[in-house]
Amino acid sequence: MELTILGCHSATPKTNTHPTAQVLNIKNHLFLIDCGEGTQVQLRRCRIKFSRIKHIFISHLHGDHYFGLIGLISTFMLLGRDTDLHIYGPKGIKEVIMLQLKLGKAWFNYPIIFHELESKSSELIFEDDKVSVHTVPLKHRVYTNGFVFKEKLGERKINIEAVKNANIDLSYFQKIKQGADIKNEMGKMIKNKSITFDPEPPKSYAFCSDTQYFPECIPTIKNVTVLYHESTFLEEHKALCANTRHSTAKDAAKIAKEASVKQLILGHYSTRYSNIEAFKEEAKEVFDQVELAKDGKVFQI
Amino acid sequence: MELTILGCHSATPKTNTHPTAQVLNIKNHLFLIDCGEGTQVQLRRCRIKFSRIKHIFISHLHGDHYFGLIGLISTFMLLGRDTDLHIYGPKGIKEVIMLQLKLGKAWFNYPIIFHELESKSSELIFEDDKVSVHTVPLKHRVYTNGFVFKEKLGERKINIEAVKNANIDLSYFQKIKQGADIKNEMGKMIKNKSITFDPEPPKSYAFCSDTQYFPECIPTIKNVTVLYHESTFLEEHKALCANTRHSTAKDAAKIAKEASVKQLILGHYSTRYSNIEAFKEEAKEVFDQVELAKDGKVFQI
Repeated sequence: MELTILGCHSATPKTNTHPTAQVLNIKNHLFLIDCGEGTQVQLRRCRIKFSRIKHIFISHLHGDHYFGLIGLISTFMLLGRDTDLHIYGPKGIKEVIMLQLKLGKAWFNYPIIFHELESKSSELIFEDDKVSVHTVPLKHRVYTNGFVFKEKLGERKINIEAVKNANIDLSYFQKIKQGADIKNEMGKMIKNKSITFDPEPPKSYAFCSDTQYFPECIPTIKNVTVLYHESTFLEEHKALCANTRHSTAKDAAKIAKEASVKQLILGHYSTRYSNIEAFKEEAKEVFDQVELAKDGKVFQI
Repeated sequence: MELTILGCHSATPKTNTHPTAQVLNIKNHLFLIDCGEGTQVQLRRCRIKFSRIKHIFISHLHGDHYFGLIGLISTFMLLGRDTDLHIYGPKGIKEVIMLQLKLGKAWFNYPIIFHELESKSSELIFEDDKVSVHTVPLKHRVYTNGFVFKEKLGERKINIEAVKNANIDLSYFQKIKQGADIKNEMGKMIKNKSITFDPEPPKSYAFCSDTQYFPECIPTIKNVTVLYHESTFLEEHKALCANTRHSTAKDAAKIAKEASVKQLILGHYSTRYSNIEAFKEEAKEVFDQVELAKDGKVFQI
């Protein structure tokens, strides 16, 4: 799993800071999470192939999280895309995108499938044989969801030496991977565990932005491998959190700790801070495994 | 008069090319013309003060001309703007902006006054004592206007030496500037022309993008000082103009010549061209005074 931070700053784009957008590479899917203004240029800068993006997840309808979406959709058209695009986001997202396409008399060369969200409980919004995606309801000024992306438990790994020694026919490989016990050439039943290794433990990634300190989300993100949690402010400006419904670095660390995640990534820094190292220091007082998101940074998960 | 090109490329923003946006500084107004995605960052890069922009002119509702508008409006809010913002653009622009503000539950700390355009004839859309702005109806795939910005004839310039020699009281200065003949201290009527110089001849700027070759616009832009005219393609790709309703560099030069403008600026280059010098060469075969728009370039008019 690989996470590319395209932008991790709040509010307004500047010459050297970009609003929220990130790409999660999970089991060969490229999932785009949020899409602030300028995301398509950041995708180019990070050399991410546009055609591989088939699913876009929008947390909420504040501009710094989705004003780049209509431009990306338009560019997909100009590039001659013909494959489906799935967009998951709050109710209203379809209306605003379709209105802009209608006003521009844009021709449609590929299908856009909108999955509008309005539930206040976590729900499964994407699933295939390798990955699931659930919403993480958050608490912000407008209806907002985070998302939790989970790998499914993979197939068992074949112990080739053991299979040979057990005299098992090669044609059983697929069944063995799926965990079946197998009769060998002499008719003896061989236990699967004796000829396979455990699969890699599945990894998971939770994206939580924007939100105030909201421990109600913990059951949904419990034990994830990596949590990205917004930290718009430092504790010294905690008073600003109440009206704006944002979190401090300490709030984020508390969520990470209570959810027993392995690693926390901070982001969505207010533009009032010129030095973001202080976010890491503040969070580390509560939770040790902290990293700072930076535009263009790639995290291996 | 000063024209800053924020972006002059067509279609999709890239790492080093920006979609259409420009700022015209005319008689102390900063007029923003078109506002493709990323315009607010280009404004920062060109060190243009956001608060000085009070009028935004949008030619048409294709994304590369207005997808940056909602982001700029939002940033104005975040910066605490409290002065009026006037937006001139095709019918529909109000609906799309207001919908996005509504979905984001954006608070309004300044008034936005929409001037929606739907006339197919040129009309006066802004006027004060120093400047007028008229639409220039163009021909594109969607309803499109260019704009012509004209200085009004300024006050006459006082010839201080002549005024002294004619024994005229200082209190008449304002009247002299306005062109009045004045009785001097001895009661003799002094002709205004003998104590003043002509004002600077008023300058004018026409913006014509996007459009196919459309000579019907010539009466509206006749004799302007500077014409910016789109040139999406070179003649070698003229066949593409019919469907896309764009112009070639040669088309732009023909309009410049027929309208007897003093200078032509080309822009809105298709991203298929890596070298834009060929646009200038092609236009020069028809009209001599040609310049190439480039992102970040400033033209003194």
